[in-house]
Amino acid sequence: MKIPRVHVCYSPELFSAYAENEPVVVVIDVLRATTAICTAIDSGAERVIPVVNVKVAKDYLDKGYIVAAERGGNIVDGFEYGNSPAAFRGDHVKGKTIVLTTSNGTYAIAAAQNAHKVAIGAFVNLQSIVNWLCSFQDREVVLLCAGWKRKFNMEDTLFAGAVVEKLKEMDKVKELTDSGIAALHLYRLAREDLFGFLEDSSHRRRLRKLDITEDVKFCLSLNEMDVLPILTPDGVIKQQ
Amino acid sequence: MKIPRVHVCYSPELFSAYAENEPVVVVIDVLRATTAICTAIDSGAERVIPVVNVKVAKDYLDKGYIVAAERGGNIVDGFEYGNSPAAFRGDHVKGKTIVLTTSNGTYAIAAAQNAHKVAIGAFVNLQSIVNWLCSFQDREVVLLCAGWKRKFNMEDTLFAGAVVEKLKEMDKVKELTDSGIAALHLYRLAREDLFGFLEDSSHRRRLRKLDITEDVKFCLSLNEMDVLPILTPDGVIKQQ
Repeated sequence: MKIPRVHVCYSPELFSAYAENEPVVVVIDVLRATTAICTAIDSGAERVIPVVNVKVAKDYLDKGYIVAAERGGNIVDGFEYGNSPAAFRGDHVKGKTIVLTTSNGTYAIAAAQNAHKVAIGAFVNLQSIVNWLCSFQDREVVLLCAGWKRKFNMEDTLFAGAVVEKLKEMDKVKELTDSGIAALHLYRLAREDLFGFLEDSSHRRRLRKLDITEDVKFCLSLNEMDVLPILTPDGVIKQQ
Repeated sequence: MKIPRVHVCYSPELFSAYAENEPVVVVIDVLRATTAICTAIDSGAERVIPVVNVKVAKDYLDKGYIVAAERGGNIVDGFEYGNSPAAFRGDHVKGKTIVLTTSNGTYAIAAAQNAHKVAIGAFVNLQSIVNWLCSFQDREVVLLCAGWKRKFNMEDTLFAGAVVEKLKEMDKVKELTDSGIAALHLYRLAREDLFGFLEDSSHRRRLRKLDITEDVKFCLSLNEMDVLPILTPDGVIKQQ
């Protein structure tokens, strides 16, 4: 059986337009929220609680949780962690609950929360995402790009294109909508050198100022971990 | 002087995210509303009044206006015209006011109505649009794709990419955002055979059922007319 239809939704703001048929959703914020979540769960964090609001994140901080808060690429004042995946690698997260708020990624997760199933995807867990999607062959799939401040961005689009490419290689797609066709074309143009292709993108230009090249390279590396973070009412946990 | 920033907005629903700096806007609904508007104005129509609602269109019909109403590619029952450009070519529109409501295009025009300036663009008036944009070199530009039911579509994206290509050839773009970079890449892949490239797109598949191949080919032909329809409070008129 094939997936009846694969969409790419280029902004969380548009999600409802793609959600009519109770789809399976992959939330994508490659630079860096969803890469960070994958890393945390892969490092043994028990759960990641995504919150949209910095105020709510602060409340968790006051209760003693590990809390990460990023806005505009920077760690928010008063917090120890932002959205760098490197911060979530190590024993300090093992068995812990991590609370996370970011500029775009946690907003995208909130937008998708009522979908049939929601997973957290990034290049680092590409194959796990593809395998998971193949297990729902009668559901539409929405690859939901967090984008940048409600706008289209390139890196999330490229990851969506990579997922489409893998699904098509396996002949699992019945209908690919225009949004999926576009993402696939862009990924094919970029795949030989994702970092180079993104050099000119506006988000990369923005992040370049932050001096996080190593972080970005990690975020663009494929299949670093075999982990599938799933959204539940209690937060994001590892799919068993 | 260069245009400070060029965006492509892939859904009318997202327009407010791109409108912060009072941009100059081109509304794009290649198949077929904006091509039809260009054709009507080029044929001497005095104005085209875009209305979002079929009920409002019906009120104009009862008052004796020429009214065109399309939903899902078809002429709405009770109306003589839909959104086929062919219907707006000829002496019957000369000097007349035409009222138009379509599935996506008139909604996109409504979304942009408070922008600094709004023009109506399609492949048939590409060069006129490019020339016009070059006259506002201190304004951000938003190429606003009508899309399909709030979703991304390919043909509007390709036209946006064609505009970006022309502006870049003339070295008029200071910053191209990710959305513009994506449209440009897609246009470069498609430009040699727009019709063939769109054959697999979902909108083309939908329209194929309507048996309007000649219409589509016309809509994809470049620079058929030297006309610049501009949105004013009294409707869309020809820029003098």
